[in-house]
Amino acid sequence: MTCHQYSERVSRWQPHARERLERAALELFEEQGFTPTTVPQIAARAGLTTRTFFRHFADKREALFGNAEASSEQVERHLMEAPATLSAAALILHGLEHTTRNHFEGRKDDLRRRSAIIQSDSGLLERNLQKRAAVRDTFARELTRRGHDTTTATLHAEVGVLALFTAIEHWLGEDDDRTLYAFVLESLESLREVVSSYSPDPGS
Amino acid sequence: MTCHQYSERVSRWQPHARERLERAALELFEEQGFTPTTVPQIAARAGLTTRTFFRHFADKREALFGNAEASSEQVERHLMEAPATLSAAALILHGLEHTTRNHFEGRKDDLRRRSAIIQSDSGLLERNLQKRAAVRDTFARELTRRGHDTTTATLHAEVGVLALFTAIEHWLGEDDDRTLYAFVLESLESLREVVSSYSPDPGS
Repeated sequence: MTCHQYSERVSRWQPHARERLERAALELFEEQGFTPTTVPQIAARAGLTTRTFFRHFADKREALFGNAEASSEQVERHLMEAPATLSAAALILHGLEHTTRNHFEGRKDDLRRRSAIIQSDSGLLERNLQKRAAVRDTFARELTRRGHDTTTATLHAEVGVLALFTAIEHWLGEDDDRTLYAFVLESLESLREVVSSYSPDPGS
Repeated sequence: MTCHQYSERVSRWQPHARERLERAALELFEEQGFTPTTVPQIAARAGLTTRTFFRHFADKREALFGNAEASSEQVERHLMEAPATLSAAALILHGLEHTTRNHFEGRKDDLRRRSAIIQSDSGLLERNLQKRAAVRDTFARELTRRGHDTTTATLHAEVGVLALFTAIEHWLGEDDDRTLYAFVLESLESLREVVSSYSPDPGS
């Protein structure tokens, strides 16, 4: 019925160059490893030219990290549109809820495959650290713009990305249906316990 | 008197190749910027050969980061020798106290100069992120070895490096005589406040 019609439409649909290149890159990285894979191979697998590849990505590494800059701009815009009355913690939660819903939910299998490749290469792990730093800077910038002092802004931003990246790892490792945002809240709870164990007065 | 004798001895003392190269690199990075400075220039300024440079450092970037691997191994050894009875938080504090005392105290001016150069170059900032990740991994590895589960080990390690790197920034920005470790404890206190503001029940 409608289900069948839908899947036929999906299979006939030709994805755009960017997505085709990303898919081809992922397949080749899995089949033969990240290092030996070349840009011409990725382009050929996608049925496109090397020139088209470089219109979309600076190098093969970026074909694995998706449109990180565009995502970062979206998160930034979303934060800027949030109510001015939100506390620092509420703004970070607002940003995390948006990020998890729009950039992660429904992509678990794909993200698992990417994660496995990232873990296999030190250059990719380095790029992943940069990505985390970029999200942190986006959060910190917006908190500073809203008048929070640098220390408060930085610590909230650090807590936000720590909760997000810890949650991503747990979420990718689980097969249940809980949302990534539920894992974010769980990570924040664990972090609270950990941080409170440093208290000179644990009872307070 | 003794003061004069001492300073004469210092000026006559020939530092070792590694330190001479580090000093020359720092001077040249400050004078003409990181990017235009070449390894032959650094070697020449230190009165040594390019070949000697490469016996000590893989590239000019490493001449700025000192002996990061050796420091990391020292921290690891120190953690392994700590009493088995320490809690996770106590072990992290033990490691931070050792790290700040042995790798930072007494070097504030030098570290300030290095920090200014790192902030000027994206490749150096990336290397700095890696350094932070390496310290985190050292902490996490030791906690795991002591039987803590991965989540606990990772979160304690993340909290440790976050406190350390936040503290370093504040410490470098201040001219008072407080130790870096005092700033670490202050950062942990601020972090505790920040994290508790995410609590669903802030009164607990």
